[in-house]
Amino acid sequence: MIKARIVVTLKNGVLDPQGKAIEGALGTLGFGGVHGIRQGKVFDVVVDGEDRAKAETDIKAMCEQLLANTVIENYAVEIA
Amino acid sequence: MIKARIVVTLKNGVLDPQGKAIEGALGTLGFGGVHGIRQGKVFDVVVDGEDRAKAETDIKAMCEQLLANTVIENYAVEIA
Repeated sequence: MIKARIVVTLKNGVLDPQGKAIEGALGTLGFGGVHGIRQGKVFDVVVDGEDRAKAETDIKAMCEQLLANTVIENYAVEIA
Repeated sequence: MIKARIVVTLKNGVLDPQGKAIEGALGTLGFGGVHGIRQGKVFDVVVDGEDRAKAETDIKAMCEQLLANTVIENYAVEIA
């Protein structure tokens, strides 16, 4: 079995209203001096088999087809 | 300025219906041999100042108060 972590983040230049809302909420809670907040997704997955290269290829295909919206998001695959 | 990444994940034992749904969808797309999918959140933030220890303390307080539900979630802070 191979464990991997996938991190999906918005591409630069894509507006992040969620990040802006969090920034506002943190300000309300008294956390000044915090900005540029960007929220993304992280997926931990377990893939059968021991072939790390194949696992990475498969996981990238999963990102392309389902886990990331590649028009506005980047993804990074970290094989554990 | 200090950049940091916060990764918020479900604690072990907490059911992840979203992860199960993704697992099913991946199976439908023909990706067999994938399991244990757990979805979490990632936040990239920029904190004013140059004091890394203070930044980490502040960011942990942000996690405790807003970014993570510490009853069911863990968080990890990575200072860049």
